Amino acid sequence: MKERYAAFIQRVREKKPLVHHITNYVSVNDCANITLAISASPIMADALEEAADIARISSAVVLNMGTLNERTIPSMLAAGKAANQAGVPVVFDPVGAGASQLRNQTAARLLDEVKIGVLRGNISEIRFLAGRQSETKGVDASEDDLQNTEDAVTVAKTLAVRLHCVTAITGAVDIVSDGKVVVCIENGHPMLSNLTGTGCMCSSLIGSFCGAAPDATFEATVAALLSMSIAGEIAFEKAGHAGNGSFRMALHDAVSHMNAETLTGRAKIHEA
Amino acid sequence: MKERYAAFIQRVREKKPLVHHITNYVSVNDCANITLAISASPIMADALEEAADIARISSAVVLNMGTLNERTIPSMLAAGKAANQAGVPVVFDPVGAGASQLRNQTAARLLDEVKIGVLRGNISEIRFLAGRQSETKGVDASEDDLQNTEDAVTVAKTLAVRLHCVTAITGAVDIVSDGKVVVCIENGHPMLSNLTGTGCMCSSLIGSFCGAAPDATFEATVAALLSMSIAGEIAFEKAGHAGNGSFRMALHDAVSHMNAETLTGRAKIHEA
Amino acid sequence: MKERYAAFIQRVREKKPLVHHITNYVSVNDCANITLAISASPIMADALEEAADIARISSAVVLNMGTLNERTIPSMLAAGKAANQAGVPVVFDPVGAGASQLRNQTAARLLDEVKIGVLRGNISEIRFLAGRQSETKGVDASEDDLQNTEDAVTVAKTLAVRLHCVTAITGAVDIVSDGKVVVCIENGHPMLSNLTGTGCMCSSLIGSFCGAAPDATFEATVAALLSMSIAGEIAFEKAGHAGNGSFRMALHDAVSHMNAETLTGRAKIHEA
Repeated sequence: MKERYAAFIQRVREKKPLVHHITNYVSVNDCANITLAISASPIMADALEEAADIARISSAVVLNMGTLNERTIPSMLAAGKAANQAGVPVVFDPVGAGASQLRNQTAARLLDEVKIGVLRGNISEIRFLAGRQSETKGVDASEDDLQNTEDAVTVAKTLAVRLHCVTAITGAVDIVSDGKVVVCIENGHPMLSNLTGTGCMCSSLIGSFCGAAPDATFEATVAALLSMSIAGEIAFEKAGHAGNGSFRMALHDAVSHMNAETLTGRAKIHEA
Repeated sequence: MKERYAAFIQRVREKKPLVHHITNYVSVNDCANITLAISASPIMADALEEAADIARISSAVVLNMGTLNERTIPSMLAAGKAANQAGVPVVFDPVGAGASQLRNQTAARLLDEVKIGVLRGNISEIRFLAGRQSETKGVDASEDDLQNTEDAVTVAKTLAVRLHCVTAITGAVDIVSDGKVVVCIENGHPMLSNLTGTGCMCSSLIGSFCGAAPDATFEATVAALLSMSIAGEIAFEKAGHAGNGSFRMALHDAVSHMNAETLTGRAKIHEA
Repeated sequence: MKERYAAFIQRVREKKPLVHHITNYVSVNDCANITLAISASPIMADALEEAADIARISSAVVLNMGTLNERTIPSMLAAGKAANQAGVPVVFDPVGAGASQLRNQTAARLLDEVKIGVLRGNISEIRFLAGRQSETKGVDASEDDLQNTEDAVTVAKTLAVRLHCVTAITGAVDIVSDGKVVVCIENGHPMLSNLTGTGCMCSSLIGSFCGAAPDATFEATVAALLSMSIAGEIAFEKAGHAGNGSFRMALHDAVSHMNAETLTGRAKIHEA
């Protein structure tokens, strides 16, 4: 099973897909660099006047509502719809869903008007979108929500069925479902939550992998999250003790060197 | 005295306060990462539609006018007022005050309509806000303004009295006053001024410390600036000679490892 | 010849020119830090209400359309025109020209209404602006366009004549022309294209050098590109094998340590 997922990284490195992002200004640089580190080509373009044009020429579109505003929300909708028409997969990262009415309404509208290919968030965000009780603390998952892995499996699967998409909940254990199968990834390192934007970077990697394999978004999503989680482990081994700055550098190093062999050798995945 | 300030870092690491930022897009990533490095939780949200909502659920609000615009100025006002109503401390970083009419008017309006808890800037910015002659060179302090430390003490104290807030002037010597006491911090390293956003990061740390200790914003501000200045010293010792990139990484490393013992052991502070 | 260009770095380190940027939110932090690394002083200010004011007090203005939008396009025009009136050199970086109608129209309008001092882009962008057939792939140069160095020399020279400016095409070989002379720089390293914003950083360095030497923008541009290309070589030697994150850190290190001696010793330049 591991080899099957690991093989996807070669497709990204060969195809170098163009990945259009409408994303937040906090982690946008990390998103661009992580996209380049996996050999894909990032473009960030959020003006309504060009969002649809850029989406159409891209291999994947990543919509991230980390610092959404009245100017970028219509751009996200336009890019998402254009991507749908062109058969380009759309990754949606509902940052902070549950934290404000604006975020809740925007997430609802995007899920309603755009066919999402992959939905990735933390457990609080995804629980909120699934209509469960959720106690969002800003843009990070709440402690309560983090406790219940069993519930996360159910939520991921249920939401995947309801939205006809792949759902991915990232955390200590990453959970990916296409509504039929649920895969749990036990790789990763707690230091990943000490850096801003590691969730956003996961979404960028998912976009990169889906852009290279639009026919297999479930497998592409698993492979993307494996890449990030295993890079987190390697980064910790190399530089984690030195502190957050060194860990961050080593994380980018590790993604840029990631290959199928490392993925296969280190992957700790199982079906739920 | 050193122990009293140093103890505040433990409160941040334990409470992990949510710190709402409306800030510039230049140093926002560094601000988020430095907030995480001190164990607080950053959220950046600048849409008017959610600025007040997010401010109310936060433990501190940081308003930074580094790249202010017509969309974010009303958001800063709304977040500041909501924070005031909710008893949430507001940190104001008047980046570039004195450099343009827009910045001057915005700073004046924020000081007029929002109760500021802590005002932090460089000597040129703070002198300008105090109504003194000031020769601002862009967003960096001018050479003339930097010469006169004695005057800086007077300006800090006078402005603290006038605005009923804590004032902090950062530079070679950091100066903090609540209008009664003035504390001078002689830690730090000149390389801090070779990186963009180290002033903004100071404001984020002040927000983090005030979010953990809203009852003691003066002590929290001193502790925050001590953390940054001492991290600058440690970063220089570890990596400064290698150049700006290495120093930056080491700075984030040092903040992530900062603790009360290091603060107490290294602090060089005295009352003016 | 090498010594003549290399001498310009000392002028930047001594004058510390204020460089106003209206640029994208992806690489803006790198642009600010690279500007500081060469000892210039960056200011990023994109509100229409202050763009002209800031341009007038600056030593150079860099207009970069990486993430242009309806709010910043008028600001770019205002800053450019104010700079023209004040005799401040304007560097234009037409990121993604050819990739969308919005970018094409904006580039045309800027070239029409603002007197550009230096135009810097990749070969696809510059070919597009020169009216040649170009196949832009997002914000990166296309493979086809990259093949033909001979053609790049012609395009650079022709466009410099037509626009009465200095043109710079960056890539494996950097090409700079003032319409009479064409200089080719064979320094650099392929890893520079694995990081986001290295082109934008080139434009920031050009702004820094032109801000220190407005009387010699051709030589300043050559010196700026030499600094970046040679920094890329040094960064690869020191840290390239470790991966993208380490290379990035080492790149900032190398620019911060760059001096005339290193430039002279390593420069591989010739006239075309």
